Amino acid sequence: MLLKVSCKLNNFLSIKHGIKKYYSVLASVLEKPELGENVEIKGWVKSLRVQKELVFADVSDGSCAQKLQVTIPKHLKTNDLTYGSAVNITGKLARSPRGQIELLAENVKIYGKCVVLDGYPFNPRTSHPPEYLRRYLHLRSRTNYISAMLRIRHSVTQLIHKYFSSKNYINIHTPIITSNDCEGAGENFKVLPDNEETVKSMMQQGLNSETVYFGSKAFLTVSGQLHLEAVCRGMGNVYTFGPTFRAENSKSRLHLSEFYMLEGELAFCETLEHLQNTIEDFLKFILTEIRNSNEKDLNLIDKNNTTPTWLNKQFITLNYDEAKNILDKKGMNTAEVGINKEQELALVDYCNGVPVFIVRWPKSLKSFYMKESQNDPEKVDALDLLAPITGEIVGGSLREDNYEKLKLKLPSESLNWYLELRKFGNIPTGGFGLGLERLLQVICAIPNIKDTLPFPRWPHNCSM
Amino acid sequence: MLLKVSCKLNNFLSIKHGIKKYYSVLASVLEKPELGENVEIKGWVKSLRVQKELVFADVSDGSCAQKLQVTIPKHLKTNDLTYGSAVNITGKLARSPRGQIELLAENVKIYGKCVVLDGYPFNPRTSHPPEYLRRYLHLRSRTNYISAMLRIRHSVTQLIHKYFSSKNYINIHTPIITSNDCEGAGENFKVLPDNEETVKSMMQQGLNSETVYFGSKAFLTVSGQLHLEAVCRGMGNVYTFGPTFRAENSKSRLHLSEFYMLEGELAFCETLEHLQNTIEDFLKFILTEIRNSNEKDLNLIDKNNTTPTWLNKQFITLNYDEAKNILDKKGMNTAEVGINKEQELALVDYCNGVPVFIVRWPKSLKSFYMKESQNDPEKVDALDLLAPITGEIVGGSLREDNYEKLKLKLPSESLNWYLELRKFGNIPTGGFGLGLERLLQVICAIPNIKDTLPFPRWPHNCSM
Repeated sequence: MLLKVSCKLNNFLSIKHGIKKYYSVLASVLEKPELGENVEIKGWVKSLRVQKELVFADVSDGSCAQKLQVTIPKHLKTNDLTYGSAVNITGKLARSPRGQIELLAENVKIYGKCVVLDGYPFNPRTSHPPEYLRRYLHLRSRTNYISAMLRIRHSVTQLIHKYFSSKNYINIHTPIITSNDCEGAGENFKVLPDNEETVKSMMQQGLNSETVYFGSKAFLTVSGQLHLEAVCRGMGNVYTFGPTFRAENSKSRLHLSEFYMLEGELAFCETLEHLQNTIEDFLKFILTEIRNSNEKDLNLIDKNNTTPTWLNKQFITLNYDEAKNILDKKGMNTAEVGINKEQELALVDYCNGVPVFIVRWPKSLKSFYMKESQNDPEKVDALDLLAPITGEIVGGSLREDNYEKLKLKLPSESLNWYLELRKFGNIPTGGFGLGLERLLQVICAIPNIKDTLPFPRWPHNCSM
Repeated sequence: MLLKVSCKLNNFLSIKHGIKKYYSVLASVLEKPELGENVEIKGWVKSLRVQKELVFADVSDGSCAQKLQVTIPKHLKTNDLTYGSAVNITGKLARSPRGQIELLAENVKIYGKCVVLDGYPFNPRTSHPPEYLRRYLHLRSRTNYISAMLRIRHSVTQLIHKYFSSKNYINIHTPIITSNDCEGAGENFKVLPDNEETVKSMMQQGLNSETVYFGSKAFLTVSGQLHLEAVCRGMGNVYTFGPTFRAENSKSRLHLSEFYMLEGELAFCETLEHLQNTIEDFLKFILTEIRNSNEKDLNLIDKNNTTPTWLNKQFITLNYDEAKNILDKKGMNTAEVGINKEQELALVDYCNGVPVFIVRWPKSLKSFYMKESQNDPEKVDALDLLAPITGEIVGGSLREDNYEKLKLKLPSESLNWYLELRKFGNIPTGGFGLGLERLLQVICAIPNIKDTLPFPRWPHNCSM
């Protein structure tokens, strides 16, 4: 046995990049179809039409929106070759009489059959409503609607990294578990070890079941901003993109308990205009690119999908006071402080569906870290960006960079580290947060946020 | 006011892509220096040499490993221009007598001063040990060591997405909060709402404080694999890359309570060889690319850094039984089942420092979902990849795709959804998990895992 291993050791090969091709992915086959070539594809039968001599199967492998039509001689059609079955098909690529790329099957192997009558929840030639699909989270990625959405989500994720990388932002993985509870406004999840043995073995004087593991109470992050600001003051422009949490009892079509947030922190950012320009440029980049890369997926989700009319228009800017004034004139009840969801959508409507920045908010409505506006100490340099479908889609602000002012507003001594960032080599910064799921709602016109991610979590729902 | 807004509405401009340049990022300035051009840079003074007529400052803005030498006429040197201060400098780019790119300062503005004697923990011309830096998580990204590591971490993140995207894998955001506790082996964190009001408002009969929010007990994920398998059976090749958790009481240089894991699930994967080839190709891609993109950062972390000798060699494969045999011959205690850390490193040593796959493990040592080996029902088609410095760096397996066999091994009824994946259109799959932090240890030769991420969490430590 040792001899065998030594042989292997003496037998090192210089590597070539790339690995053996195990089969052809449809995204590649359809991008550059090589007519007359032998290919082996693997995927699922999405529809089947049986004719006299031939069987026509549409096969998808999930890599792209398109399906490949496979022409199968009748004698290769077994009983297991049905809608939903998993197949391995070899054959030659050809162009059909209608000009379509098709595969002329020479061999068909079934990996897994699919007996609809045995409890499979989806039917051929049926468009199931999203609420129905949500009952089958483990299977719904097999549908056109959800697979298209997941491919778009994938592409938006790639585009986010591409955009910020190309502009020399560093991607920082801010922590999920944090001892900082100052921002949650009572919407924190707390984190504890589940194992009693672990708790026992770690218990020390002065600790309790909530503090035993980390030495202090620990929560799921509601924002990576404060951590991002620390790195921004060491390394310049940074962004974080990852899971974020809210323990709210909110079941609206716009809320989740777990969602993905993109947060950017701009070094040397001295004006709201700088921040606004960045957000607007980023959103237009994403919307433009995704319509190029995933047009067919967008069509699968919404047949009537068209380029948003605002894509070639400049975003609007309104002061908070101006916005309230407009709502007043519209006869909406504005006695309440802030701007509610209905009012947000009314403002977007007022702007003819063009996204609108609401800037300079009353200090009392916003967080402690926001920078006091020049010439108006009752206002802060904060912004909300309102968009069609979702209303608020981005929130942001310049950060208070005055050590003395921040010290007075600091909500807890546990944030002394945050204050200390302003003591040494301090710089002005500003930043924003954007929810990925709401962005996907805007991109795809998806009414319910629960259909923008693979495994949604909301009050009383944590399936799988 | 309304009139003003209407004017804005009528004044939409067609947009050009890109935004106003607010200053020049050093990564760009140094990549294509335009000699004689006026530039405005913003960053931090990393070192300062005061001479008779001139002051020489090395300025960094975190965007790259290099610093820009700035030549400052003495009359522009204020008391606040010190090591650690944040500056805005305008001037002309030139080539120094030594051929280096330098900036001839015409104007210097200080954003934030840095008085080392006022408690700043870092000193000029001093290389602080990593243990010392760990005490200042909020400030340590200002050091060469940590900023270089964070830029490498950023690049590896981009490369992971680039590799799998280019191979048509779809990035799936598997959930952080999950009701699945079957995999944790007692190492789960549980998640509860922290707010008593929320708990009260959501309480229903049959629920308790641990189940009130989600309707079932909820945990932090220990792996996205099972969720990934669900989507893999709908959409083919998929990967997930994000935070993962272990509530262990382990304080080794290789363990964290929160870490980033890359997991890939390969559709139609029928052999361990297919899985091994993918893992090997991926790792060699990352190692090759990162040495091109971040060479200067690697040098900042380890002056002696060289290309790993294994990069142009084929990885070794040993059966579990062969590996135990080798350890026996080395006189190591192998009575215990499994392979411990010391033995892992001995096996890598035996293979002359070349990464080695240990394959076909005793069933009793591995998880329920692993596929029984052909011809040996006591073994499963599992693999561990062992590498220098860390030992185990990747774990993976083929998945049990036989419905009846899996049914017998299923640890809980709550996983019936996982079993049902095998009932409809089932396919053979295999997958792997790789810890980003251990990969960074291997890439950068970083001894302690706590220095591979910005904000490490480990037992009794959740600072910030």
